[in-house]
Amino acid sequence: MNPAPPFRPVALAHASRLVNHGPTVLVTSAHGGRRNLMAAAWSMPVEFTPPRIAIVIDKRTFTRELIQASGHFGVCIPGAALADLTYAVGSVSGREIDKFERFGIAARAGAVTGVPLLEQGCAAWMECRLIPEPHTEQAYDTCFAEVLSAAADARIFENGRWSVREDNAELHTLHHLGAGLFGRFGALVQARPL
Amino acid sequence: MNPAPPFRPVALAHASRLVNHGPTVLVTSAHGGRRNLMAAAWSMPVEFTPPRIAIVIDKRTFTRELIQASGHFGVCIPGAALADLTYAVGSVSGREIDKFERFGIAARAGAVTGVPLLEQGCAAWMECRLIPEPHTEQAYDTCFAEVLSAAADARIFENGRWSVREDNAELHTLHHLGAGLFGRFGALVQARPL
Repeated sequence: MNPAPPFRPVALAHASRLVNHGPTVLVTSAHGGRRNLMAAAWSMPVEFTPPRIAIVIDKRTFTRELIQASGHFGVCIPGAALADLTYAVGSVSGREIDKFERFGIAARAGAVTGVPLLEQGCAAWMECRLIPEPHTEQAYDTCFAEVLSAAADARIFENGRWSVREDNAELHTLHHLGAGLFGRFGALVQARPL
Repeated sequence: MNPAPPFRPVALAHASRLVNHGPTVLVTSAHGGRRNLMAAAWSMPVEFTPPRIAIVIDKRTFTRELIQASGHFGVCIPGAALADLTYAVGSVSGREIDKFERFGIAARAGAVTGVPLLEQGCAAWMECRLIPEPHTEQAYDTCFAEVLSAAADARIFENGRWSVREDNAELHTLHHLGAGLFGRFGALVQARPL
């Protein structure tokens, strides 16, 4: 068994940085003894303080049903080593099967909301509270949420900053280009003042 | 002078793929003889067909003022070679200066909406129509829009697909990690079925 990854709390003022760069994420949810996870490419921060995000979750999904029932969800940010899993959980519905069992995914319950949280193989996670916005949920499948708690693997995100290096490539975030092909940051560009 | 980049129309059914992977974008706008551009890290698709996006544009910006007045904006996706420019236009306001003149940016007027569009150094652009949503614009600075027209540099996006290669590195999209540090895709990961 792999040792537990070194997850550390992320200050809420830094939470937006976890998704600022557009990673594909895993959305976790639980209610009434059922749980689920799905992949989502469409999310973004909308506010720094309090940290708020928007995320697109199709109204026909089991995840959406669980979120509307519980009022909470988790956002876990998979590292490159979880590319196969990320694509797999985005391709089947959790209505019939428990994907955690099906794919052998370890999860623990978030201390604040109880949502399942993944750490092994993930760069970070956030526990979120749905901010009910019936119109945008219906018209655009867009759910707004407040981030209540966040943590990251200190090997790639610490003191509010991403540290993308060759030696932590398996924790680099995934960015979906289409058809299961993901980009990851093999290169960095530092802007200089003009 | 550089030759004109080989921009080709992108089918609207493929427009979401231009921002699916979370790039930092340049938002362009124009109204009443004034024009502007700003950088935005926070955007996402919300619908494939018709292609719709959500983007966060602070209500205090000059860009927001121009967009609310004209009902349109452009989303240009800068390539890695424009990192310095992308950071620079996100750090000053266009209320006092014309950033196109200040930074020597060439732009042409979009055929559908008239918004300024950048091609040199950019991977793609989209012309967008604001879908008025006063509540989310006010509460979350989140603007919803329909994509009316899109085009991409055929050297990096063609037939609905990104082609990220070593020989087109200067057109790789930028993903803001913070403080002017951007990630770009130096590496790809192809998910395999589990």
